[in-house]
Amino acid sequence: MTRNASTPRTEPLFHDVEFRVRYAETDQMGVVYHTNYLVWCEVGRTDFIRARGMSYADMERAGVGLAVSELTARFHAAARYDDTVRVRTTLAEVRSRGITFDYLITDVASGRRLVTARTALVSIDSSGRPTALPANVRALFVDE
Amino acid sequence: MTRNASTPRTEPLFHDVEFRVRYAETDQMGVVYHTNYLVWCEVGRTDFIRARGMSYADMERAGVGLAVSELTARFHAAARYDDTVRVRTTLAEVRSRGITFDYLITDVASGRRLVTARTALVSIDSSGRPTALPANVRALFVDE
Amino acid sequence: MTRNASTPRTEPLFHDVEFRVRYAETDQMGVVYHTNYLVWCEVGRTDFIRARGMSYADMERAGVGLAVSELTARFHAAARYDDTVRVRTTLAEVRSRGITFDYLITDVASGRRLVTARTALVSIDSSGRPTALPANVRALFVDE
Amino acid sequence: MTRNASTPRTEPLFHDVEFRVRYAETDQMGVVYHTNYLVWCEVGRTDFIRARGMSYADMERAGVGLAVSELTARFHAAARYDDTVRVRTTLAEVRSRGITFDYLITDVASGRRLVTARTALVSIDSSGRPTALPANVRALFVDE
Repeated sequence: MTRNASTPRTEPLFHDVEFRVRYAETDQMGVVYHTNYLVWCEVGRTDFIRARGMSYADMERAGVGLAVSELTARFHAAARYDDTVRVRTTLAEVRSRGITFDYLITDVASGRRLVTARTALVSIDSSGRPTALPANVRALFVDE
Repeated sequence: MTRNASTPRTEPLFHDVEFRVRYAETDQMGVVYHTNYLVWCEVGRTDFIRARGMSYADMERAGVGLAVSELTARFHAAARYDDTVRVRTTLAEVRSRGITFDYLITDVASGRRLVTARTALVSIDSSGRPTALPANVRALFVDE
Repeated sequence: MTRNASTPRTEPLFHDVEFRVRYAETDQMGVVYHTNYLVWCEVGRTDFIRARGMSYADMERAGVGLAVSELTARFHAAARYDDTVRVRTTLAEVRSRGITFDYLITDVASGRRLVTARTALVSIDSSGRPTALPANVRALFVDE
Repeated sequence: MTRNASTPRTEPLFHDVEFRVRYAETDQMGVVYHTNYLVWCEVGRTDFIRARGMSYADMERAGVGLAVSELTARFHAAARYDDTVRVRTTLAEVRSRGITFDYLITDVASGRRLVTARTALVSIDSSGRPTALPANVRALFVDE
Protein backbone atom coordinates (compact mmCIF):
# COMPACT_ATOMS: atom_id res chain seq x y z
CA MET A 1 0.00 0.00 0.00
CA THR A 2 1.68 3.20 -1.18
CA ARG A 3 0.17 6.56 -0.54
CA ASN A 4 1.19 10.18 -0.39
CA ALA A 5 -0.96 11.61 2.38
CA SER A 6 -0.53 15.26 1.41
CA THR A 7 -1.79 14.90 -2.16
CA PRO A 8 -4.57 12.33 -1.92
CA ARG A 9 -6.21 13.27 -5.18
CA THR A 10 -3.20 13.00 -7.44
CA GLU A 11 -1.55 9.91 -5.89
CA PRO A 12 -3.87 7.00 -6.41
CA LEU A 13 -4.31 4.44 -3.67
CA PHE A 14 -3.19 1.00 -4.70
CA HIS A 15 -2.33 -2.34 -3.16
CA ASP A 16 -0.40 -5.39 -4.37
CA VAL A 17 -0.93 -9.04 -3.56
CA GLU A 18 0.99 -12.02 -4.97
CA PHE A 19 0.21 -15.73 -5.11
CA ARG A 20 0.83 -18.81 -7.25
CA VAL A 21 -1.49 -20.13 -9.95
CA ARG A 22 -3.38 -23.26 -8.86
CA TYR A 23 -3.70 -26.35 -11.03
CA ALA A 24 -7.49 -26.12 -10.68
CA GLU A 25 -7.36 -22.69 -12.36
CA THR A 26 -5.99 -24.03 -15.66
CA ASP A 27 -8.02 -25.36 -18.57
CA GLN A 28 -7.27 -27.65 -21.48
CA MET A 29 -5.58 -24.84 -23.44
CA GLY A 30 -2.79 -25.25 -20.85
CA VAL A 31 -3.29 -21.77 -19.40
CA VAL A 32 -5.51 -20.12 -16.79
CA TYR A 33 -9.22 -20.21 -17.63
CA HIS A 34 -10.23 -16.61 -18.27
CA THR A 35 -12.82 -16.13 -15.53
CA ASN A 36 -10.27 -17.08 -12.86
CA TYR A 37 -8.41 -13.80 -13.43
CA LEU A 38 -11.60 -12.10 -12.30
CA VAL A 39 -11.66 -14.19 -9.12
CA TRP A 40 -8.12 -12.93 -8.54
CA CYS A 41 -9.37 -9.35 -8.88
CA GLU A 42 -11.65 -10.06 -5.94
CA VAL A 43 -8.69 -11.43 -3.98
CA GLY A 44 -6.87 -8.16 -4.74
CA ARG A 45 -9.89 -6.04 -3.76
CA THR A 46 -10.35 -7.94 -0.47
CA ASP A 47 -6.68 -7.46 0.37
CA PHE A 48 -6.83 -3.76 -0.56
CA ILE A 49 -9.79 -3.15 1.76
CA ARG A 50 -8.13 -5.05 4.61
CA ALA A 51 -4.95 -3.00 4.14
CA ARG A 52 -7.08 0.17 4.53
CA GLY A 53 -8.08 -1.04 8.00
CA MET A 54 -11.36 -2.95 7.67
CA SER A 55 -12.01 -6.45 6.45
CA TYR A 56 -14.71 -6.95 3.86
CA ALA A 57 -15.90 -9.85 6.05
CA ASP A 58 -16.56 -7.31 8.84
CA MET A 59 -18.33 -5.00 6.38
CA GLU A 60 -20.74 -7.81 5.50
CA ARG A 61 -21.27 -8.67 9.17
CA ALA A 62 -22.15 -4.98 9.68
CA GLY A 63 -24.86 -5.40 7.02
CA VAL A 64 -23.22 -3.79 4.00
CA GLY A 65 -22.11 -5.65 0.91
CA LEU A 66 -20.40 -4.61 -2.29
CA ALA A 67 -21.84 -6.30 -5.38
CA VAL A 68 -20.17 -6.18 -8.79
CA SER A 69 -22.41 -4.23 -11.18
CA GLU A 70 -20.08 -3.80 -14.15
CA LEU A 71 -16.92 -5.51 -15.26
CA THR A 72 -14.54 -5.00 -18.15
CA ALA A 73 -11.38 -6.97 -18.80
CA ARG A 74 -8.69 -7.26 -21.44
CA PHE A 75 -6.64 -10.44 -21.65
CA HIS A 76 -3.16 -9.58 -22.94
CA ALA A 77 -1.18 -12.73 -22.14
CA ALA A 78 -1.80 -15.99 -20.31
CA ALA A 79 -0.72 -17.10 -16.85
CA ARG A 80 0.32 -20.72 -16.38
CA TYR A 81 0.15 -23.20 -13.52
CA ASP A 82 2.60 -22.50 -10.69
CA ASP A 83 3.54 -19.03 -12.02
CA THR A 84 3.60 -16.34 -9.37
CA VAL A 85 1.26 -13.52 -10.30
CA ARG A 86 0.76 -10.06 -8.82
CA VAL A 87 -2.60 -8.30 -8.66
CA ARG A 88 -2.34 -4.53 -8.30
CA THR A 89 -5.67 -3.08 -7.21
CA THR A 90 -6.10 0.69 -7.62
CA LEU A 91 -8.95 2.82 -6.34
CA ALA A 92 -10.49 4.47 -9.41
CA GLU A 93 -13.55 6.25 -8.02
CA VAL A 94 -15.71 6.53 -4.91
CA ARG A 95 -19.37 7.40 -5.45
CA SER A 96 -22.16 7.88 -2.93
CA ARG A 97 -23.45 4.38 -3.61
CA GLY A 98 -20.42 2.56 -4.88
CA ILE A 99 -16.73 2.17 -5.60
CA THR A 100 -14.78 1.42 -8.76
CA PHE A 101 -11.47 -0.43 -8.77
CA ASP A 102 -8.88 -1.01 -11.50
CA TYR A 103 -6.71 -4.11 -11.65
CA LEU A 104 -3.42 -4.91 -13.28
CA ILE A 105 -2.36 -8.55 -13.18
CA THR A 106 1.28 -9.23 -14.05
CA ASP A 107 3.61 -12.20 -14.14
CA VAL A 108 6.13 -11.61 -11.36
CA ALA A 109 9.08 -13.41 -12.96
CA SER A 110 8.92 -11.59 -16.30
CA GLY A 111 7.03 -8.44 -15.33
CA ARG A 112 4.75 -9.12 -18.28
CA ARG A 113 1.25 -7.63 -18.24
CA LEU A 114 -1.37 -10.38 -18.30
CA VAL A 115 -4.76 -8.80 -17.65
CA THR A 116 -6.18 -5.33 -17.07
CA ALA A 117 -9.64 -5.04 -15.62
CA ARG A 118 -12.10 -2.68 -13.97
CA THR A 119 -15.06 -3.45 -11.72
CA ALA A 120 -17.77 -1.10 -10.52
CA LEU A 121 -19.29 -2.17 -7.22
CA VAL A 122 -22.53 -1.00 -5.68
CA SER A 123 -23.21 -0.79 -1.99
CA ILE A 124 -26.11 -3.04 -0.97
CA ASP A 125 -27.88 -3.77 2.31
CA SER A 126 -28.42 -7.26 3.69
CA SER A 127 -31.54 -7.74 1.54
CA GLY A 128 -29.64 -6.84 -1.63
CA ARG A 129 -31.01 -3.32 -2.16
CA PRO A 130 -28.69 -0.47 -3.21
CA THR A 131 -27.82 1.77 -0.30
CA ALA A 132 -25.47 4.67 0.44
CA LEU A 133 -21.91 3.67 1.26
CA PRO A 134 -21.66 3.97 5.08
CA ALA A 135 -19.45 6.81 6.33
CA ASN A 136 -16.94 4.48 7.98
CA VAL A 137 -16.52 2.51 4.75
CA ARG A 138 -16.27 5.68 2.68
CA ALA A 139 -13.63 7.00 5.08
CA LEU A 140 -11.39 4.06 4.21
CA PHE A 141 -11.00 5.43 0.72
CA VAL A 142 -11.56 9.20 0.79
CA ASP A 143 -10.00 12.03 2.81
CA GLU A 144 -12.70 14.47 3.76
CA MET B 1 -36.66 -42.07 -11.45
CA THR B 2 -37.33 -45.79 -11.42
CA ARG B 3 -38.99 -47.46 -8.49
CA ASN B 4 -40.94 -50.55 -7.68
CA ALA B 5 -43.54 -49.30 -5.21
CA SER B 6 -44.42 -52.69 -3.77
CA THR B 7 -40.89 -53.63 -2.72
CA PRO B 8 -39.38 -50.38 -1.51
CA ARG B 9 -36.66 -51.96 0.61
CA THR B 10 -35.17 -54.25 -2.02
CA GLU B 11 -35.41 -51.97 -5.05
CA PRO B 12 -33.11 -49.01 -4.47
CA LEU B 13 -34.28 -45.54 -5.42
CA PHE B 14 -32.17 -43.92 -8.07
CA HIS B 15 -32.28 -40.99 -10.46
CA ASP B 16 -30.36 -40.09 -13.62
CA VAL B 17 -29.37 -36.69 -14.95
CA GLU B 18 -27.32 -35.93 -18.06
CA PHE B 19 -25.41 -32.85 -19.20
CA ARG B 20 -22.37 -31.83 -21.23
CA VAL B 21 -18.91 -31.15 -19.83
CA ARG B 22 -18.07 -27.43 -19.71
CA TYR B 23 -14.76 -26.00 -20.91
CA ALA B 24 -14.28 -24.38 -17.50
CA GLU B 25 -14.33 -27.85 -15.94
CA THR B 26 -11.19 -29.06 -17.76
CA ASP B 27 -7.61 -28.60 -16.61
CA GLN B 28 -4.27 -28.59 -18.39
CA MET B 29 -4.17 -32.41 -18.46
CA GLY B 30 -6.90 -32.02 -21.12
CA VAL B 31 -9.53 -33.74 -19.01
CA VAL B 32 -12.01 -32.76 -16.28
CA TYR B 33 -10.37 -31.51 -13.07
CA HIS B 34 -11.11 -34.14 -10.42
CA THR B 35 -13.10 -32.04 -7.94
CA ASN B 36 -15.62 -31.12 -10.66
CA TYR B 37 -16.97 -34.69 -10.69
CA LEU B 38 -17.94 -34.06 -7.06
CA VAL B 39 -19.80 -30.90 -8.06
CA TRP B 40 -21.68 -33.08 -10.55
CA CYS B 41 -22.62 -35.43 -7.69
CA GLU B 42 -24.34 -32.48 -6.07
CA VAL B 43 -26.15 -31.75 -9.33
CA GLY B 44 -27.32 -35.38 -9.31
CA ARG B 45 -28.38 -35.20 -5.66
CA THR B 46 -30.34 -31.97 -6.20
CA ASP B 47 -32.13 -33.48 -9.16
CA PHE B 48 -32.87 -36.70 -7.25
CA ILE B 49 -34.46 -34.76 -4.38
CA ARG B 50 -36.52 -32.63 -6.77
CA ALA B 51 -37.74 -35.78 -8.53
CA ARG B 52 -38.92 -37.09 -5.13
CA GLY B 53 -41.20 -34.05 -4.87
CA MET B 54 -39.33 -31.34 -2.94
CA SER B 55 -36.61 -28.99 -4.06
CA TYR B 56 -33.50 -28.72 -1.94
CA ALA B 57 -33.87 -24.94 -2.32
CA ASP B 58 -37.25 -25.22 -0.54
CA MET B 59 -35.70 -27.41 2.16
CA GLU B 60 -33.15 -24.70 2.89
CA ARG B 61 -35.85 -22.01 2.91
CA ALA B 62 -37.68 -24.16 5.49
CA GLY B 63 -34.58 -23.99 7.66
CA VAL B 64 -33.02 -27.39 7.04
CA GLY B 65 -29.77 -27.97 5.18
CA LEU B 66 -27.84 -31.05 4.20
CA ALA B 67 -24.09 -30.67 4.66
CA VAL B 68 -21.55 -33.15 3.29
CA SER B 69 -19.78 -34.84 6.22
CA GLU B 70 -17.92 -37.61 4.41
CA LEU B 71 -16.96 -38.23 0.84
CA THR B 72 -15.21 -41.05 -0.97
CA ALA B 73 -14.53 -41.22 -4.69
CA ARG B 74 -12.72 -43.44 -7.17
CA PHE B 75 -11.67 -42.02 -10.51
CA HIS B 76 -11.71 -44.79 -13.12
CA ALA B 77 -11.52 -42.86 -16.39
CA ALA B 78 -11.58 -39.23 -17.46
CA ALA B 79 -14.37 -37.14 -18.99
CA ARG B 80 -13.46 -34.62 -21.66
CA TYR B 81 -14.86 -31.27 -22.75
CA ASP B 82 -18.20 -31.47 -24.56
CA ASP B 83 -18.74 -35.15 -23.67
CA THR B 84 -22.22 -35.94 -22.42
CA VAL B 85 -22.06 -37.52 -18.99
CA ARG B 86 -24.72 -39.21 -16.88
CA VAL B 87 -24.86 -39.02 -13.09
CA ARG B 88 -26.83 -41.83 -11.48
CA THR B 89 -27.64 -40.98 -7.86
CA THR B 90 -28.80 -43.85 -5.65
CA LEU B 91 -30.16 -43.62 -2.13
CA ALA B 92 -27.84 -45.70 0.05
CA GLU B 93 -29.09 -45.06 3.57
CA VAL B 94 -31.44 -42.81 5.57
CA ARG B 95 -30.47 -42.20 9.20
CA SER B 96 -32.23 -40.13 11.87
CA ARG B 97 -29.84 -37.23 11.27
CA GLY B 98 -28.65 -37.76 7.75
CA ILE B 99 -28.72 -39.41 4.34
CA THR B 100 -26.09 -41.23 2.30
CA PHE B 101 -26.06 -41.24 -1.50
CA ASP B 102 -24.02 -43.25 -4.01
CA TYR B 103 -23.08 -41.90 -7.43
CA LEU B 104 -22.07 -43.51 -10.69
CA ILE B 105 -20.85 -41.16 -13.39
CA THR B 106 -20.65 -42.62 -16.89
CA ASP B 107 -19.84 -41.41 -20.37
CA VAL B 108 -23.11 -41.58 -22.31
CA ALA B 109 -21.62 -42.28 -25.75
CA SER B 110 -19.45 -45.23 -24.70
CA GLY B 111 -21.21 -46.32 -21.51
CA ARG B 112 -17.81 -46.26 -19.82
CA ARG B 113 -17.68 -45.87 -16.06
CA LEU B 114 -15.84 -42.69 -15.10
CA VAL B 115 -16.29 -42.12 -11.38
CA THR B 116 -17.95 -43.87 -8.45
CA ALA B 117 -18.53 -41.88 -5.29
CA ARG B 118 -20.42 -41.79 -2.00
CA THR B 119 -21.35 -38.85 0.17
CA ALA B 120 -22.77 -38.89 3.69
CA LEU B 121 -24.84 -35.80 4.48
CA VAL B 122 -25.92 -34.56 7.87
CA SER B 123 -29.08 -32.60 8.52
CA ILE B 124 -28.32 -29.15 9.95
CA ASP B 125 -30.45 -26.24 11.12
CA SER B 126 -30.02 -22.68 9.88
CA SER B 127 -27.23 -22.02 12.39
CA GLY B 128 -25.30 -25.07 11.18
CA ARG B 129 -26.02 -27.42 14.11
CA PRO B 130 -26.88 -31.11 13.50
CA THR B 131 -30.58 -31.75 13.81
CA ALA B 132 -33.01 -34.59 13.15
CA LEU B 133 -34.14 -34.97 9.56
CA PRO B 134 -37.65 -33.43 9.44
CA ALA B 135 -40.46 -35.92 8.91
CA ASN B 136 -41.49 -34.41 5.56
CA VAL B 137 -37.94 -34.69 4.26
CA ARG B 138 -37.55 -38.22 5.61
CA ALA B 139 -40.81 -39.18 3.93
CA LEU B 140 -39.33 -38.34 0.54
CA PHE B 141 -36.97 -41.26 0.91
CA VAL B 142 -38.52 -43.84 3.25
CA ASP B 143 -41.87 -45.65 3.23
CA GLU B 144 -43.08 -45.92 6.81
CA MET C 1 -31.35 -21.24 -33.58
CA THR C 2 -33.41 -18.77 -35.58
CA ARG C 3 -32.24 -17.43 -38.88
CA ASN C 4 -33.61 -15.84 -41.97
CA ALA C 5 -31.45 -17.30 -44.75
CA SER C 6 -32.26 -14.66 -47.32
CA THR C 7 -31.25 -11.67 -45.24
CA PRO C 8 -28.25 -12.83 -43.31
CA ARG C 9 -26.88 -9.39 -42.55
CA THR C 10 -29.98 -7.90 -41.00
CA GLU C 11 -31.23 -10.92 -39.04
CA PRO C 12 -28.72 -11.69 -36.35
CA LEU C 13 -27.84 -15.29 -35.63
CA PHE C 14 -28.64 -16.33 -32.09
CA HIS C 15 -28.99 -19.45 -30.01
CA ASP C 16 -30.62 -20.23 -26.65
CA VAL C 17 -29.62 -22.73 -24.01
CA GLU C 18 -31.26 -23.29 -20.61
CA PHE C 19 -30.05 -25.00 -17.44
CA ARG C 20 -30.45 -24.85 -13.66
CA VAL C 21 -28.19 -22.94 -11.29
CA ARG C 22 -25.88 -25.26 -9.32
CA TYR C 23 -25.32 -24.96 -5.59
CA ALA C 24 -21.57 -24.71 -6.20
CA GLU C 25 -22.24 -21.53 -8.23
CA THR C 26 -23.64 -19.57 -5.28
CA ASP C 27 -21.66 -17.54 -2.77
CA GLN C 28 -22.33 -16.34 0.77
CA MET C 29 -24.46 -13.44 -0.50
CA GLY C 30 -27.00 -16.18 -1.31
CA VAL C 31 -26.84 -15.57 -5.06
CA VAL C 32 -24.67 -16.66 -7.98
CA TYR C 33 -21.02 -15.56 -7.70
CA HIS C 34 -20.49 -13.05 -10.48
CA THR C 35 -17.79 -14.82 -12.51
CA ASN C 36 -20.03 -17.87 -12.93
CA TYR C 37 -22.30 -15.92 -15.29
CA LEU C 38 -19.26 -15.62 -17.55
CA VAL C 39 -18.74 -19.39 -17.44
CA TRP C 40 -22.36 -19.65 -18.57
CA CYS C 41 -21.57 -17.38 -21.51
CA GLU C 42 -19.03 -19.96 -22.60
CA VAL C 43 -21.67 -22.69 -22.28
CA GLY C 44 -23.90 -20.57 -24.54
CA ARG C 45 -21.10 -19.97 -27.03
CA THR C 46 -20.21 -23.68 -27.20
CA ASP C 47 -23.82 -24.58 -27.80
CA PHE C 48 -24.19 -21.87 -30.44
CA ILE C 49 -21.18 -23.18 -32.37
CA ARG C 50 -22.42 -26.78 -32.16
CA ALA C 51 -25.83 -25.69 -33.43
CA ARG C 52 -24.07 -24.14 -36.46
CA GLY C 53 -22.71 -27.59 -37.31
CA MET C 54 -19.26 -27.91 -35.74
CA SER C 55 -18.26 -28.61 -32.17
CA TYR C 56 -15.71 -26.34 -30.57
CA ALA C 57 -14.03 -29.54 -29.32
CA ASP C 58 -13.50 -30.53 -32.99
CA MET C 59 -12.19 -27.03 -33.78
CA GLU C 60 -9.54 -27.45 -31.10
CA ARG C 61 -8.67 -30.95 -32.31
CA ALA C 62 -8.18 -29.39 -35.78
CA GLY C 63 -5.62 -27.05 -34.22
CA VAL C 64 -7.63 -23.83 -33.89
CA GLY C 65 -8.71 -22.29 -30.63
CA LEU C 66 -10.75 -19.25 -29.71
CA ALA C 67 -9.32 -17.32 -26.77
CA VAL C 68 -11.22 -14.56 -24.98
CA SER C 69 -9.39 -11.26 -25.52
CA GLU C 70 -11.95 -8.78 -24.18
CA LEU C 71 -14.95 -9.11 -21.94
CA THR C 72 -17.56 -6.67 -20.71
CA ALA C 73 -20.50 -7.49 -18.47
CA ARG C 74 -23.31 -5.72 -16.65
CA PHE C 75 -24.97 -7.43 -13.72
CA HIS C 76 -28.60 -6.30 -13.54
CA ALA C 77 -30.15 -8.82 -11.14
CA ALA C 78 -29.03 -11.98 -9.39
CA ALA C 79 -29.76 -15.62 -10.17
CA ARG C 80 -30.32 -18.01 -7.29
CA TYR C 81 -29.70 -21.69 -6.69
CA ASP C 82 -32.01 -24.02 -8.62
CA ASP C 83 -33.43 -21.22 -10.79
CA THR C 84 -33.63 -22.08 -14.46
CA VAL C 85 -31.69 -19.56 -16.52
CA ARG C 86 -31.51 -18.96 -20.26
CA VAL C 87 -28.38 -17.83 -22.07
CA ARG C 88 -29.05 -16.21 -25.44
CA THR C 89 -25.85 -16.00 -27.48
CA THR C 90 -25.91 -13.67 -30.49
CA LEU C 91 -23.24 -13.32 -33.16
CA ALA C 92 -22.11 -9.69 -33.05
CA GLU C 93 -19.19 -9.59 -35.48
CA VAL C 94 -16.87 -11.83 -37.50
CA ARG C 95 -13.38 -10.48 -38.19
CA SER C 96 -10.50 -12.05 -40.12
CA ARG C 97 -8.87 -13.14 -36.86
CA GLY C 98 -11.74 -13.34 -34.45
CA ILE C 99 -15.40 -13.36 -33.50
CA THR C 100 -17.45 -11.29 -31.08
CA PHE C 101 -20.52 -12.62 -29.28
CA ASP C 102 -23.19 -10.91 -27.19
CA TYR C 103 -24.99 -12.64 -24.34
CA LEU C 104 -28.26 -12.05 -22.58
CA ILE C 105 -28.88 -14.14 -19.47
CA THR C 106 -32.46 -14.18 -18.20
CA ASP C 107 -34.42 -15.91 -15.48
CA VAL C 108 -36.81 -18.25 -17.27
CA ALA C 109 -39.65 -18.16 -14.70
CA SER C 110 -39.91 -14.37 -14.50
CA GLY C 111 -38.35 -13.35 -17.81
CA ARG C 112 -36.19 -10.93 -15.85
CA ARG C 113 -32.90 -9.80 -17.37
CA LEU C 114 -29.98 -10.85 -15.17
CA VAL C 115 -26.77 -10.18 -17.08
CA THR C 116 -25.74 -8.73 -20.42
CA ALA C 117 -22.23 -9.40 -21.66
CA ARG C 118 -19.96 -9.31 -24.70
CA THR C 119 -16.79 -11.27 -25.40
CA ALA C 120 -14.32 -10.75 -28.21
CA LEU C 121 -12.46 -13.92 -29.14
CA VAL C 122 -9.28 -14.24 -31.16
CA SER C 123 -8.39 -17.20 -33.30
CA ILE C 124 -5.19 -18.88 -32.12
CA ASP C 125 -3.13 -21.84 -33.32
CA SER C 126 -2.10 -24.75 -31.11
CA SER C 127 0.91 -22.80 -29.79
CA GLY C 128 -1.29 -19.86 -28.77
CA ARG C 129 -0.37 -17.43 -31.57
CA PRO C 130 -3.06 -15.35 -33.30
CA THR C 131 -4.00 -16.78 -36.67
CA ALA C 132 -6.62 -16.20 -39.35
CA LEU C 133 -9.98 -17.81 -38.71
CA PRO C 134 -10.02 -20.95 -40.92
CA ALA C 135 -12.45 -20.81 -43.85
CA ASN C 136 -14.57 -23.71 -42.57
CA VAL C 137 -14.96 -22.02 -39.20
CA ARG C 138 -15.71 -18.65 -40.80
CA ALA C 139 -18.32 -20.32 -42.99
CA LEU C 140 -20.26 -21.35 -39.89
CA PHE C 141 -21.03 -17.71 -39.22
CA VAL C 142 -20.89 -15.79 -42.50
CA ASP C 143 -22.62 -16.25 -45.85
CA GLU C 144 -20.15 -15.45 -48.60
CA MET D 1 9.09 -28.99 5.88
CA THR D 2 10.25 -30.91 8.93
CA ARG D 3 12.25 -34.06 8.65
CA ASN D 4 14.52 -36.19 10.74
CA ALA D 5 17.11 -37.45 8.25
CA SER D 6 18.37 -40.33 10.36
CA THR D 7 15.01 -42.05 10.83
CA PRO D 8 13.17 -41.51 7.55
CA ARG D 9 10.72 -44.35 8.05
CA THR D 10 9.38 -43.32 11.44
CA GLU D 11 9.36 -39.54 10.99
CA PRO D 12 6.85 -38.76 8.29
CA LEU D 13 7.57 -36.07 5.74
CA PHE D 14 5.10 -33.21 5.89
CA HIS D 15 4.73 -29.66 4.66
CA ASP D 16 2.51 -26.74 5.68
CA VAL D 17 1.04 -23.97 3.56
CA GLU D 18 -1.29 -21.18 4.69
CA PHE D 19 -3.61 -18.84 2.80
CA ARG D 20 -6.87 -16.95 3.19
CA VAL D 21 -10.29 -18.19 2.10
CA ARG D 22 -11.55 -16.47 -1.07
CA TYR D 23 -15.07 -15.10 -1.42
CA ALA D 24 -15.50 -17.21 -4.56
CA GLU D 25 -14.96 -20.33 -2.43
CA THR D 26 -18.03 -19.77 -0.25
CA ASP D 27 -21.57 -20.93 -1.00
CA GLN D 28 -25.00 -19.83 0.15
CA MET D 29 -24.65 -21.75 3.43
CA GLY D 30 -22.18 -18.97 4.31
CA VAL D 31 -19.21 -21.33 4.50
CA VAL D 32 -16.71 -22.86 2.07
CA TYR D 33 -18.27 -25.13 -0.56
CA HIS D 34 -17.05 -28.63 0.22
CA THR D 35 -15.16 -29.42 -2.99
CA ASN D 36 -12.96 -26.35 -2.52
CA TYR D 37 -11.21 -28.01 0.44
CA LEU D 38 -10.08 -30.66 -2.07
CA VAL D 39 -8.67 -27.95 -4.35
CA TRP D 40 -6.71 -26.75 -1.32
CA CYS D 41 -5.32 -30.28 -0.86
CA GLU D 42 -3.86 -29.92 -4.34
CA VAL D 43 -2.34 -26.57 -3.36
CA GLY D 44 -0.77 -28.31 -0.36
CA ARG D 45 0.49 -31.21 -2.50
CA THR D 46 2.04 -28.85 -5.09
CA ASP D 47 3.79 -26.89 -2.36
CA PHE D 48 5.03 -30.10 -0.70
CA ILE D 49 6.57 -31.34 -3.95
CA ARG D 50 8.20 -27.98 -4.63
CA ALA D 51 9.67 -27.97 -1.12
CA ARG D 52 11.23 -31.38 -1.87
CA GLY D 53 13.14 -29.76 -4.73
CA MET D 54 11.10 -30.25 -7.92
CA SER D 55 8.06 -28.40 -9.15
CA TYR D 56 5.09 -30.42 -10.29
CA ALA D 57 4.99 -28.10 -13.31
CA ASP D 58 8.49 -29.37 -14.24
CA MET D 59 7.37 -32.96 -13.71
CA GLU D 60 4.60 -32.46 -16.23
CA ARG D 61 6.96 -30.78 -18.69
CA ALA D 62 9.19 -33.88 -18.32
CA GLY D 63 6.22 -36.00 -19.42
CA VAL D 64 5.03 -37.40 -16.09
CA GLY D 65 1.76 -36.50 -14.42
CA LEU D 66 0.13 -37.50 -11.16
CA ALA D 67 -3.61 -38.13 -11.50
CA VAL D 68 -5.93 -38.53 -8.51
CA SER D 69 -7.28 -42.10 -8.49
CA GLU D 70 -8.92 -42.22 -5.07
CA LEU D 71 -10.05 -39.60 -2.60
CA THR D 72 -11.56 -39.74 0.86
CA ALA D 73 -12.46 -36.74 3.00
CA ARG D 74 -14.15 -36.00 6.31
CA PHE D 75 -15.60 -32.57 6.93
CA HIS D 76 -15.39 -31.77 10.64
CA ALA D 77 -16.00 -28.01 10.74
CA ALA D 78 -16.46 -25.23 8.19
CA ALA D 79 -14.04 -22.55 7.05
CA ARG D 80 -15.38 -19.07 6.37
CA TYR D 81 -14.48 -16.25 4.00
CA ASP D 82 -11.27 -14.43 4.90
CA ASP D 83 -10.23 -17.02 7.53
CA THR D 84 -6.61 -18.07 7.31
CA VAL D 85 -6.36 -21.83 6.86
CA ARG D 86 -3.38 -24.17 7.03
CA VAL D 87 -3.05 -27.28 4.86
CA ARG D 88 -0.63 -29.86 6.27
CA THR D 89 0.30 -32.40 3.59
CA THR D 90 1.94 -35.62 4.79
CA LEU D 91 3.49 -38.33 2.65
CA ALA D 92 1.57 -41.52 3.43
CA GLU D 93 2.97 -44.03 0.95
CA VAL D 94 5.15 -44.30 -2.15
CA ARG D 95 4.38 -47.16 -4.53
CA SER D 96 6.06 -48.16 -7.80
CA ARG D 97 3.30 -46.44 -9.77
CA GLY D 98 1.95 -43.87 -7.40
CA ILE D 99 1.99 -41.82 -4.21
CA THR D 100 -0.54 -41.33 -1.43
CA PHE D 101 -0.83 -38.12 0.59
CA ASP D 102 -2.77 -37.26 3.74
CA TYR D 103 -4.08 -33.79 4.45
CA LEU D 104 -5.11 -31.96 7.59
CA ILE D 105 -6.78 -28.60 7.09
CA THR D 106 -7.03 -26.40 10.18
CA ASP D 107 -8.20 -22.91 11.03
CA VAL D 108 -5.07 -20.98 11.97
CA ALA D 109 -6.69 -18.59 14.48
CA SER D 110 -8.42 -21.26 16.57
CA GLY D 111 -6.32 -24.32 15.72
CA ARG D 112 -9.59 -26.11 14.99
CA ARG D 113 -9.53 -29.13 12.69
CA LEU D 114 -11.68 -28.52 9.62
CA VAL D 115 -11.06 -31.34 7.15
CA THR D 116 -9.00 -34.52 6.99
CA ALA D 117 -8.45 -36.11 3.61
CA ARG D 118 -6.37 -38.63 1.70
CA THR D 119 -5.66 -38.85 -2.03
CA ALA D 120 -4.01 -41.70 -3.93
CA LEU D 121 -2.29 -40.52 -7.09
CA VAL D 122 -1.11 -42.63 -10.00
CA SER D 123 1.83 -41.81 -12.19
CA ILE D 124 0.77 -41.34 -15.83
CA ASP D 125 2.62 -40.58 -19.06
CA SER D 126 1.70 -37.74 -21.40
CA SER D 127 -0.99 -39.86 -23.09
CA GLY D 128 -2.63 -40.65 -19.75
CA ARG D 129 -1.44 -44.25 -19.33
CA PRO D 130 -0.20 -45.51 -15.94
CA THR D 131 3.57 -45.69 -15.80
CA ALA D 132 6.27 -46.32 -13.20
CA LEU D 133 7.20 -43.31 -11.07
CA PRO D 134 10.50 -42.01 -12.54
CA ALA D 135 13.54 -42.54 -10.33
CA ASN D 136 14.17 -38.79 -9.91
CA VAL D 137 10.59 -38.24 -8.77
CA ARG D 138 10.70 -41.25 -6.46
CA ALA D 139 13.95 -39.96 -4.97
CA LEU D 140 12.14 -36.80 -3.81
CA PHE D 141 10.15 -38.89 -1.37
CA VAL D 142 12.15 -42.03 -0.49
CA ASP D 143 15.67 -42.58 0.83
CA GLU D 144 17.17 -45.59 -0.90
